Amino acid sequence: CVGAQAQSSVQLYGLIDLAVGSYETSGSSRLGRVESGGMTTSYIGFSGKEDLGGGLAVNFALDHFLRADTGEAARFNGDAFWARNANVGLSGSFGTVTLGRRSTPMFVSTLLFNPFGDSFGFSPAIRSYYGSTGTLAGDSGWSNGITYASPRFGGLSATVTYALDETPGARDANIGGNVLYFAGPLGLSFSAQRVQAVFDSGDETAVQLGASYALGAVKLFGQYGQIREDQGAVDSKDKIFQLGASYRIGEGSVLASYGSRKTTGTTESKRDIASLGYDHFLSKRTDVYAVYMYDKIRDTDSGNTVAFGIRHRF
Amino acid sequence: CVGAQAQSSVQLYGLIDLAVGSYETSGSSRLGRVESGGMTTSYIGFSGKEDLGGGLAVNFALDHFLRADTGEAARFNGDAFWARNANVGLSGSFGTVTLGRRSTPMFVSTLLFNPFGDSFGFSPAIRSYYGSTGTLAGDSGWSNGITYASPRFGGLSATVTYALDETPGARDANIGGNVLYFAGPLGLSFSAQRVQAVFDSGDETAVQLGASYALGAVKLFGQYGQIREDQGAVDSKDKIFQLGASYRIGEGSVLASYGSRKTTGTTESKRDIASLGYDHFLSKRTDVYAVYMYDKIRDTDSGNTVAFGIRHRF
Amino acid sequence: CVGAQAQSSVQLYGLIDLAVGSYETSGSSRLGRVESGGMTTSYIGFSGKEDLGGGLAVNFALDHFLRADTGEAARFNGDAFWARNANVGLSGSFGTVTLGRRSTPMFVSTLLFNPFGDSFGFSPAIRSYYGSTGTLAGDSGWSNGITYASPRFGGLSATVTYALDETPGARDANIGGNVLYFAGPLGLSFSAQRVQAVFDSGDETAVQLGASYALGAVKLFGQYGQIREDQGAVDSKDKIFQLGASYRIGEGSVLASYGSRKTTGTTESKRDIASLGYDHFLSKRTDVYAVYMYDKIRDTDSGNTVAFGIRHRF
Repeated sequence: CVGAQAQSSVQLYGLIDLAVGSYETSGSSRLGRVESGGMTTSYIGFSGKEDLGGGLAVNFALDHFLRADTGEAARFNGDAFWARNANVGLSGSFGTVTLGRRSTPMFVSTLLFNPFGDSFGFSPAIRSYYGSTGTLAGDSGWSNGITYASPRFGGLSATVTYALDETPGARDANIGGNVLYFAGPLGLSFSAQRVQAVFDSGDETAVQLGASYALGAVKLFGQYGQIREDQGAVDSKDKIFQLGASYRIGEGSVLASYGSRKTTGTTESKRDIASLGYDHFLSKRTDVYAVYMYDKIRDTDSGNTVAFGIRHRF
Repeated sequence: CVGAQAQSSVQLYGLIDLAVGSYETSGSSRLGRVESGGMTTSYIGFSGKEDLGGGLAVNFALDHFLRADTGEAARFNGDAFWARNANVGLSGSFGTVTLGRRSTPMFVSTLLFNPFGDSFGFSPAIRSYYGSTGTLAGDSGWSNGITYASPRFGGLSATVTYALDETPGARDANIGGNVLYFAGPLGLSFSAQRVQAVFDSGDETAVQLGASYALGAVKLFGQYGQIREDQGAVDSKDKIFQLGASYRIGEGSVLASYGSRKTTGTTESKRDIASLGYDHFLSKRTDVYAVYMYDKIRDTDSGNTVAFGIRHRF
Repeated sequence: CVGAQAQSSVQLYGLIDLAVGSYETSGSSRLGRVESGGMTTSYIGFSGKEDLGGGLAVNFALDHFLRADTGEAARFNGDAFWARNANVGLSGSFGTVTLGRRSTPMFVSTLLFNPFGDSFGFSPAIRSYYGSTGTLAGDSGWSNGITYASPRFGGLSATVTYALDETPGARDANIGGNVLYFAGPLGLSFSAQRVQAVFDSGDETAVQLGASYALGAVKLFGQYGQIREDQGAVDSKDKIFQLGASYRIGEGSVLASYGSRKTTGTTESKRDIASLGYDHFLSKRTDVYAVYMYDKIRDTDSGNTVAFGIRHRF
């Protein structure tokens, strides 16, 4: 076993998150599981940055999601191998222009304004929009994208992604953007997107507002969003809100979040998710966590999940 | 081409084993082949260890098997990408607790007590239990596992793995363990496992004893094991033994091993495998080998394989 | 995020090439696309070399093609993960013997003697022989290969690859070779190959001549080749030529190439491709390019492609 050669600009990094617990989503049966990616989807990646002079730089990233419980590649069967990041960008005083696949602006806003971050396992916000329990179309990352990210003006920054639809006889592209504002204890976010590429007709539009406020050891989070699907036979609207808080205690944090999604239109439904967790850092790179999650689809048995995990960054 | 950055704790390592030869298993037709993984299954991996203080450490491993002859990922089509290792563990004076996918304790015992190690290509022991010619259920690595490995007490150590069955309406988990003892020239092993996760009903239990003894340049190996399958319609028993020796000559070793598996019950059969090889180390990291393997299924034409290979660790 | 450990012999390297443009091959409809691998197929790889003493060395390479626009692994669905390179070799004063998968000698000759190199996106030469628009059987890399590469004698070197057919009841192997000669401004190439492994009966033979000549900032390229398919019902012959030039201007190069393939026999056809590009290097590792490509199948609407891209090596 030998390490890679010392020289330059390629970073090798990643994260493994594995938990053991009793898992039960609303309407499903309880199952003991070892699960990957409860708090953060496990991944390994390669990235680099080259200074081109004159204030210009080029950067790239190739990041691979994986399921560390079974050793399977990607987030699910059929997912792209480099689904987390596969892009190259040019940055300068004008901002950054990136080509390829990367996270959507709305996904970034969703993860920044809830206490469970990008947790596909336990974040009520993420689970309302994304993954197997979410209703937002078009994944949390878009392929074939052209992304412009502005420089920061004071606490203000903006990102917009235009993702081409390359199916023969293709319909129009996806477009999404966000505006973020951070100043002292306050954080604000507005994001919006329109997805067409995955539909034969019509589209889906979504908007989301987010806010966070830090009060000493406490940080409060709130999000409100709407999704409108309009594809002829299917015409529905989701209203999604999330309220959360984190409370720092020494090397740990108590995390609490409640989210609710109400769907009206072609099919009507409601789903409430609440998560309470404690996340303890053994080092800057390694934490252990315990989470309880309550999941309730209207007119369906509630689900109760308890999981204990470890998350290691490298 | 630039190397990865110097800093810390990620190790990048692997092994490529490629051979050319004339391959023939019992009952099949002879074929000239370039084959990957004759002596050791080719792989590339990433691992790391972080010292958390207070005697506690966290480690992870992500290891990927590959077929270097064709460039295909994994050991076979449908195999998990990170099938060799995908896990994270906490270790301290209490031992190590690991979550995720890793080799089973019985596989470790099987490879330690035969002169061809973990050779899926030529080891009579490995080929009797594992791979396309083996009868043991549930692979050489288990997913969704919780593993406890004891510290060493003198020459004694033990490992136990509990691997959850996560299919909806799942049956019980797999469980397996081994006890290893090494003292001077002597090595001893006892391993046992029970597999349920891959069966609709019933289970398969297996036990194995192993011993090795070093006499100067000679090392002797012996193994005896039993597998009992009990799944209603299928009710069979395998008795497997292996005897082997290695003989060190300068930078090389002569390797000899004979293994036999007798199956009684629902289907009766017998398979004998004998391998004779010479493995020469060009450096600590690179060796070349020549192997002859005889393979005989009862009432079937014998197979005779001759292969010449090179194995490089990085 | 931490880098890999400093120590030794593993190199981590790769290339990401992403472009945005309007793509149209002859007979297809125009489509806006973000495309990976226009000038060079994107990849990431690991390789190493160990000095064994006595003039002997061992080297290995594991290189993975990828589609950076969508994050998908490999060049196409069904392609091997490590399709670019998966091999180990021994080298000494006798040359290099390599086992495993690597580029064919004819592919190396094709890319060396045209101004667009190994561009599957824009090189008329590459597109006439290889990829979705090419007619040469058996891919640009062969699996299960045994390759001998001679040392250089003055400007002369030769490579031959023998690639086994391992399908049960297999037919004969593929064989291919090239001879390269470089002396001052002049470069010459002869390559030939015979493919049998992918056919049920018959074979395909191909020969190719190439030449290049540097005149100050200008470099001229010419290639002529023939492919003969002979598989019973299918009996056809391709005649392929390519003429090209590159012209260095400061940090950039103008690239121009015209290629034509005429097919006679079972199915008759003709395809002409012409590409004009400008490639500007922002650094040794990063270039940006603009390319126009004209594509014309006889009796079919012509296709016109314009693309702007960035290519970054790491």
